[in-house]
Amino acid sequence: MRMYDIIQKKRDGGELSDEEIKFFVNGAVDGSIPDYQLSALLMAVYFREMSEREISVLTQAMAESGDTVNLSAIDGFTVDKHSTGGVGDKTTLIVAPIVAALGGKVAKMSGRGLGHTGGTVDKLESIIGFKTELAREDFFRQVNETGISVIGQSGNLAPADKKLYALRDVTATVESIPLIASSIMSKKLAAGSQGIVLDVKTGSGAFMKTVEKSKALAEEMVRIGTAAGRKMTAVITNMDIPLGRAIGNSLEVIEAVETLNGRGCGDLAEVCFCLAANMLMLVNGKSYEDNFADVKASVADGSALSKLRQMVEYQGGNPEWIDNTELFPKAKYEYKVISSRSGYINRMDAEKIGIASVILGAGREKKEDSVDFSAGIILEKKTCDKVEKGDTLAVFHTNDESKIEEAEKRFLSALEFAENEVEKQPLIYETITG
Amino acid sequence: MRMYDIIQKKRDGGELSDEEIKFFVNGAVDGSIPDYQLSALLMAVYFREMSEREISVLTQAMAESGDTVNLSAIDGFTVDKHSTGGVGDKTTLIVAPIVAALGGKVAKMSGRGLGHTGGTVDKLESIIGFKTELAREDFFRQVNETGISVIGQSGNLAPADKKLYALRDVTATVESIPLIASSIMSKKLAAGSQGIVLDVKTGSGAFMKTVEKSKALAEEMVRIGTAAGRKMTAVITNMDIPLGRAIGNSLEVIEAVETLNGRGCGDLAEVCFCLAANMLMLVNGKSYEDNFADVKASVADGSALSKLRQMVEYQGGNPEWIDNTELFPKAKYEYKVISSRSGYINRMDAEKIGIASVILGAGREKKEDSVDFSAGIILEKKTCDKVEKGDTLAVFHTNDESKIEEAEKRFLSALEFAENEVEKQPLIYETITG
Repeated sequence: MRMYDIIQKKRDGGELSDEEIKFFVNGAVDGSIPDYQLSALLMAVYFREMSEREISVLTQAMAESGDTVNLSAIDGFTVDKHSTGGVGDKTTLIVAPIVAALGGKVAKMSGRGLGHTGGTVDKLESIIGFKTELAREDFFRQVNETGISVIGQSGNLAPADKKLYALRDVTATVESIPLIASSIMSKKLAAGSQGIVLDVKTGSGAFMKTVEKSKALAEEMVRIGTAAGRKMTAVITNMDIPLGRAIGNSLEVIEAVETLNGRGCGDLAEVCFCLAANMLMLVNGKSYEDNFADVKASVADGSALSKLRQMVEYQGGNPEWIDNTELFPKAKYEYKVISSRSGYINRMDAEKIGIASVILGAGREKKEDSVDFSAGIILEKKTCDKVEKGDTLAVFHTNDESKIEEAEKRFLSALEFAENEVEKQPLIYETITG
Repeated sequence: MRMYDIIQKKRDGGELSDEEIKFFVNGAVDGSIPDYQLSALLMAVYFREMSEREISVLTQAMAESGDTVNLSAIDGFTVDKHSTGGVGDKTTLIVAPIVAALGGKVAKMSGRGLGHTGGTVDKLESIIGFKTELAREDFFRQVNETGISVIGQSGNLAPADKKLYALRDVTATVESIPLIASSIMSKKLAAGSQGIVLDVKTGSGAFMKTVEKSKALAEEMVRIGTAAGRKMTAVITNMDIPLGRAIGNSLEVIEAVETLNGRGCGDLAEVCFCLAANMLMLVNGKSYEDNFADVKASVADGSALSKLRQMVEYQGGNPEWIDNTELFPKAKYEYKVISSRSGYINRMDAEKIGIASVILGAGREKKEDSVDFSAGIILEKKTCDKVEKGDTLAVFHTNDESKIEEAEKRFLSALEFAENEVEKQPLIYETITG
């Protein structure tokens, strides 16, 4: 089999055989196929797309290209969640404890932040002492005993996806439904949960700019997961309004705690409760309405918050920080970003806001960079809000005063103002089930 | 400027600016742009094509990426010829002496053979002593004194094309009109002649399988050359019938001498006379008919052959070999390929026949391989010919008896037979002028 022939076949709109797909996936991992051939194939796939069979085979081949996690040591139904992209996306910190409090088993592996997006692992590590590397048996034991554990990705999960994603990222071949769907689902299949809820972001700040495209991506991923024997749901949510008010590691943990205390920002709670209810539907088969009522009750009676507290304690953090978020170290400088104009916020560019938070120290540009856990941004105004000249738009938290000016410039460039009141977009567009 | 943005722009059907094209051409040569980004761009160009302006800028940038030959030291009008692809293509050996005999200045740089196609430089070197590496001033002096010199490509001609072609060859991005046209024309522009006649092959054995596509390619190349200030003509010729009867280095020189003696194979003479007349039209502005009559006269009166003889003498070969081709060393073995069936030859696959000749020793598979000058194939039957069982289809010439069986198998697989008489295709389809 020759890579040349595979490229040519896809270039001409042909359907690749199972063997051809496995050939290039294996060649990507073992280095036998040069990058210039892989990137030519990826661009051909961008233009010619892939059939459902091809996408399923590609996903499975990438999932099987490295370690796969066997969660059978866990009693009960394991359920996972994935969000596509996300600035200030702390949903895992809220959703996982709720689901665990209501009987789901959340054995979750999360990533670190890179570029303008944050990572759940960094957020959890802002709780000093919190361990995100656990031995496999400790991970399983914790989930069996408490229903919840969130750790960093360990082992060699879907290395073929890692390789191909790195190439796509530099060859303008990211925005392809077959390639996005297979990339996300290969990691989710390898991570082993029986049920998976996908939070597919839509809007100008997301990969998928329109609801139609997001729906097509969501349907494809639900199809792949269902074909692989998993229970699947996808929720299409709005990316044009940042979720919640906090961006930055400890700031987001604090906001998650607030939300689990019933005092969170409305949009954040709405999305989290919806995702949690959908995850629980996969676990217990009850209706959305019933599960949603249970979710609200688990927040009202404190049982969800106490699951988060329990996880922090099990994984080495000080649970008192959850009881009293004043214990989180604070950044040295708080700086108010003041509006020089009046009007309505028409749009906030999530990527630019994410970059502003990285400038303040909250993220890393390169893998090796360290993170300032206390740095970040609290949004005082969000999309659709009315702003008067002199109002505070946001509060910057940072330990590096010299970065404030650059971050402010970037932050302000993310805002679009309108003269008149802006129509609110729905927060949740659609739910797709397997 | 970022290569990522250039790839994305082309991927989305945008038109690249002059600066963007120069950026990636320069980056290809100096190695600052990795191969995987270049190949992704080439695939995007394959799908999105290029505007006329983009193709012209790409051609010029590649032409200027290395040395360019300045032929201004030559008195008179310099005229060049290029054939796209070619098994058994000895047209240069016939056309160049004719044009020189009739007042054109042929200062030509040719290549070596690789894979299934032969190269004019190898053919000339089958005349022992013939030097294809001349100092620039000797090359110019010879053309000024005799009107003709054919040498090997010296210096660093269009290195950007070399780099991009090597990538296209392994990423299934060869068959793209913008990329083929700019590749050929960048080398022709760098080689410096004032007039250029292109022999664009069409048919199942060529890059361009249909006359329409060949015409589109020819028109594009004529446009590029004209825009660059060159006088241009393109002739679309049939590739499905091998030109002449000889394939192999000295065998082709001998056939060229026969043709210049007025004893050549009809199709070969027809194409060569047509190309020569078109080259002369660029030189002297006379009509095709008048030039064609002059071409025939130059063969009839021996003046064309004596130009070839003069070139051989000037470049260190023994001119007596031209007077008496029996002086060329002969291969040790001559083997007749006998037909096991009767019928009409419907099609001959030029590539497979070229490979059979390489197996016999006439070509090189890798750059480093040496060539057996006397090896090759003489076709006794060609497309449309009637064949009786037991007829000789071809005669193999080789010094390696052990290769005959493999070469015969390959040769026979190149032939398609029909029961009934096969309609003759035109040899010359169309002429496109600038």
